[in-house]
Amino acid sequence: MIPEPLEDLIRTLAKVPGLGRRSAQRAALYLLTHQEHLGKLQADLQTVQLKTKTCSVCSNIAMEDPCHICTDPKRDDSTLCVVEEIADLWAIERSGAFSGRYHVLGGLLSAIDGIGPDDIGIPTLLKRVTDGNFAEVIIALSAGVDGQTTAHLLSQKLQPLGIKVTALAKGLPMGAEIDYMDEGTLNFALQGRKSF
Amino acid sequence: MIPEPLEDLIRTLAKVPGLGRRSAQRAALYLLTHQEHLGKLQADLQTVQLKTKTCSVCSNIAMEDPCHICTDPKRDDSTLCVVEEIADLWAIERSGAFSGRYHVLGGLLSAIDGIGPDDIGIPTLLKRVTDGNFAEVIIALSAGVDGQTTAHLLSQKLQPLGIKVTALAKGLPMGAEIDYMDEGTLNFALQGRKSF
Repeated sequence: MIPEPLEDLIRTLAKVPGLGRRSAQRAALYLLTHQEHLGKLQADLQTVQLKTKTCSVCSNIAMEDPCHICTDPKRDDSTLCVVEEIADLWAIERSGAFSGRYHVLGGLLSAIDGIGPDDIGIPTLLKRVTDGNFAEVIIALSAGVDGQTTAHLLSQKLQPLGIKVTALAKGLPMGAEIDYMDEGTLNFALQGRKSF
Repeated sequence: MIPEPLEDLIRTLAKVPGLGRRSAQRAALYLLTHQEHLGKLQADLQTVQLKTKTCSVCSNIAMEDPCHICTDPKRDDSTLCVVEEIADLWAIERSGAFSGRYHVLGGLLSAIDGIGPDDIGIPTLLKRVTDGNFAEVIIALSAGVDGQTTAHLLSQKLQPLGIKVTALAKGLPMGAEIDYMDEGTLNFALQGRKSF
């Protein structure tokens, strides 16, 4: 009953992460009834495909390869920050708290999804660290199970290379109210307490 | 720091209903790193634009104008079902409980958004009912404030035309557990109670 081309579009949209069947349906109907928006989306998809590249050094997406972060002479060559995804790199850049280089894994180890070390570019990372002159590798992975498993494996592989391996601090997020925090966070916050 | 064409795509995606800035960012990065999916999306957008039309009778989206529902000789010409959006029409078709014709308003009256009767095609509906031979108009609008305001106005405009105007029943949804239902629903369910 839904016209075939529209059903195709809905199915394609529904496979994009963050969109389910219902929101894909809503998006498709919106686009069809807002032709100027549909046209802009088509143009943007084409431009992004033509003009952006994956950086062969760090796997960031940029308009040049290597990307502007990898080639920026003002950045610190001695520190490498390992992140899961490009969006994490963007978030850390927004914080302004890091001026070294990045390495985007593109995923995390996952027993359930059958994702092993080779799938997420760990060999590439090890080669990059072996060949490079990094003094420290900061592992900036999420605090969930897969993130911590991956971080553990990375530290095991990196430490024999004689390099300092660190992880992001765990504790209260900014503005947190103590009585709204879960036990795990409070545990981290207490264990990692610092003197004034 | 996000490449310009990618930022453009994220902004365009973020304006699609159902996607916020964060999910648009996630979708854009996914599409960029899955070129075959991006290509399929481009092709689907183009096909849907070329092959689908808005039905000039009921405002449904279909491959012909008038749409297959408006032209189907097996459907009941005496009953007209008024819905807000095409997605509502699809939902009612899926239920299989209605075999008359449809009228898609394309919106609801909204004091806050400044949407009046002319914006949502009420004049078109009144003309269609005046010119047609409908015995009953079923108002199938959502049970929220805007839906009920619109339904009220529609019944006021339609009744002088000597036509039977009905609304969808209100009560417990299928499988509902009484103690999880809100007071409004329980009120409707009690007021509309039926004898065995």
